[in-house]
Amino acid sequence: MSEFSLPLGFQASGVACGIRGDVGRLDLALFVSDRPAATAGVFTTNLVCGAPVKVCRERVPRTTGRAVVINAGNANAATGDRGIADARRMTDAVAKSLNCNADDVLVCSTGVIGRFLPMEKLEAGIPQAATALASTPSAFDLAARAIMTTDTVPKQATRSAELRGANGTKTVRISGACKGAAMIAPNMATMLCTIMTDAELTPTEADAALRVSVNQSFNCISVEGHTSTSDTVLLLANGASGTGLLDADSRVNFQKLLDEVCTDLSTAIIRDAEGATHFITIDVIGARTRDEAFRIAKTIADSPLNKTAIHGADPNWGRIVSSAGYAGVPLREEDISLSINGLDVYRDGAPLPFDPKTVSDSIRNNRDTHIEMTLTLGNARIRYWTSDLTAEYVRLNADYTT
Amino acid sequence: MSEFSLPLGFQASGVACGIRGDVGRLDLALFVSDRPAATAGVFTTNLVCGAPVKVCRERVPRTTGRAVVINAGNANAATGDRGIADARRMTDAVAKSLNCNADDVLVCSTGVIGRFLPMEKLEAGIPQAATALASTPSAFDLAARAIMTTDTVPKQATRSAELRGANGTKTVRISGACKGAAMIAPNMATMLCTIMTDAELTPTEADAALRVSVNQSFNCISVEGHTSTSDTVLLLANGASGTGLLDADSRVNFQKLLDEVCTDLSTAIIRDAEGATHFITIDVIGARTRDEAFRIAKTIADSPLNKTAIHGADPNWGRIVSSAGYAGVPLREEDISLSINGLDVYRDGAPLPFDPKTVSDSIRNNRDTHIEMTLTLGNARIRYWTSDLTAEYVRLNADYTT
Repeated sequence: MSEFSLPLGFQASGVACGIRGDVGRLDLALFVSDRPAATAGVFTTNLVCGAPVKVCRERVPRTTGRAVVINAGNANAATGDRGIADARRMTDAVAKSLNCNADDVLVCSTGVIGRFLPMEKLEAGIPQAATALASTPSAFDLAARAIMTTDTVPKQATRSAELRGANGTKTVRISGACKGAAMIAPNMATMLCTIMTDAELTPTEADAALRVSVNQSFNCISVEGHTSTSDTVLLLANGASGTGLLDADSRVNFQKLLDEVCTDLSTAIIRDAEGATHFITIDVIGARTRDEAFRIAKTIADSPLNKTAIHGADPNWGRIVSSAGYAGVPLREEDISLSINGLDVYRDGAPLPFDPKTVSDSIRNNRDTHIEMTLTLGNARIRYWTSDLTAEYVRLNADYTT
Repeated sequence: MSEFSLPLGFQASGVACGIRGDVGRLDLALFVSDRPAATAGVFTTNLVCGAPVKVCRERVPRTTGRAVVINAGNANAATGDRGIADARRMTDAVAKSLNCNADDVLVCSTGVIGRFLPMEKLEAGIPQAATALASTPSAFDLAARAIMTTDTVPKQATRSAELRGANGTKTVRISGACKGAAMIAPNMATMLCTIMTDAELTPTEADAALRVSVNQSFNCISVEGHTSTSDTVLLLANGASGTGLLDADSRVNFQKLLDEVCTDLSTAIIRDAEGATHFITIDVIGARTRDEAFRIAKTIADSPLNKTAIHGADPNWGRIVSSAGYAGVPLREEDISLSINGLDVYRDGAPLPFDPKTVSDSIRNNRDTHIEMTLTLGNARIRYWTSDLTAEYVRLNADYTT
């Protein structure tokens, strides 16, 4: 049984409504707050975005959020005006079941792009999901499973801490569930995440805290670098704990908690990346700015050449160093040093003597690989996560035919 | 026997000097003009670039080019000051053998990054290569083979036309050889190309014509989007035909010829891309500017999600359309239409009904795939070429260990 509890005042459910075809496959999740919740969202930067993203963007941040409905099996993206109407209809059905305002319901969809939603299945499933709502870890677990596509495991995280608010010190909990087995799945795409907290936040506080956390977690992962049409991270804060962010200390503590939940969830996506055999952590240190560090880390992460080298336990550091050279960041070779799993291979623009077998063995014998690039340009740094590229990834994404 | 002739006044050779290890594996090529040639070059944009690129950049454009020396098996990149000295020593050795000025010799290297060149082997091999120089198709063929890394076929092209110059109308020939089985090969990287013509050009004319041709050929191909440290395209024009670019007509004709040679050679690289089963032509039409068309085409080409879909004959057009949305080009879904192999699947932002099996079969049953994205933004267009992503590509690049 799941160890993950929901924060106070939240319920969840996951049911099978037949979108996925396979009988009994969970494909519809509900996350509901029993009272109005401050709600914030961060969305894909793709200009071709799903209808649910367009609907959500109109509705956050807000003070009166009540529910998030998510279906798997169909992304409702590239579906034109009818797609937008369908996304609204999903929230209408939820509002009817919960007896709330449709504008207070958010919606996400993940699955194939360019097909219309099976609305009759959804409109039959949503009342079922509403009936199944519960505040138990088991209900949360079912909801986390219902949003999975090619994920092999459900992805949940939770944290709690004592937080000082206007009414004294109380326990605050943050819990979240996300899906994504890469930014991409066979004929499917998307990373979706719902985070709930019983802390009392204003929509502005929720929005600011979420952006900080997402920026160092979900925005620092990639599998193959294809930006989804539907990426969504939502935060609902319903205040049921009876405490909020009274002072600077509380704010720092809450941010830390939210950062941890987002890091847990985003790295869980990379650990479950399709076909991957390595979980790769890339630290870029000594850059001029965080953005420059980010661009270098992302360029290293997105190169199939680097990904296949790690897959093959090949200590081919030249590939990694050369990635820094086309990241769009001004630098000279002499500015670059590199270590792989703590073993120095390149320093100040010149190769270091090293034992290739030692480095190769350290990659082969560990699922986790650590690449650290040190620059002499400044004090900014970033941590970025990615996976390796395997024949299994190709198989999963090619050997599928509509 | 090769059908490719050298232009007048050029000789070539390819020999085995032992860099590649395997006995008898060709790994050293020379291309030589018997008289001073106007010489131009276009090089990688990677800030981490090979020592030969640095040396060549100092030496072009020039009026007195005489030779290009190329080795396979070692890229002489990320090798610091010693690498630069070694690249110069290679040109010194060629100059000594040819009795010319070292500054008139250009140099390219392709192979593993971060290792020092075996200079004793090169300095023994270069006089051998000079002795083997000949103007025959067979010598040209050996030179084209000597620059191969994981290429499965040598890549040559030739064109000739009647060109009106100061001395009347004469036949002008352009011939070139390149290597590259993708921008990437196991533990190797790079695309190298030497183009020779007996037309009489100034260095300025050679440089301008080469940039135009490269821009619509070598700059419009990608396999996995990892920019090499060493990419080089060189043009030597020695005037041996006795004619040059007298008037606008001649210039247009010569440019067309050079465009064709560059297109032949660059698409030959994509046709030989590692592990590929499809040769993909992407046309982006109706963009505001050529650069915007380029960015969209490259984003489509570089997505492993699109590459694996084509490999699997999956008519998953949603992946392709969504690529346009994160190319950094302002657009709306309604601006986009898409066809695959001439079959319309998406028009003005909405899915079209189509038979998936027809599209799938057309992909599966043809090595060539044509993706055409039509935008409503303007009149600019681009043609771009790429390959699909296969398990064999992963195997080639992973199952290698130093």
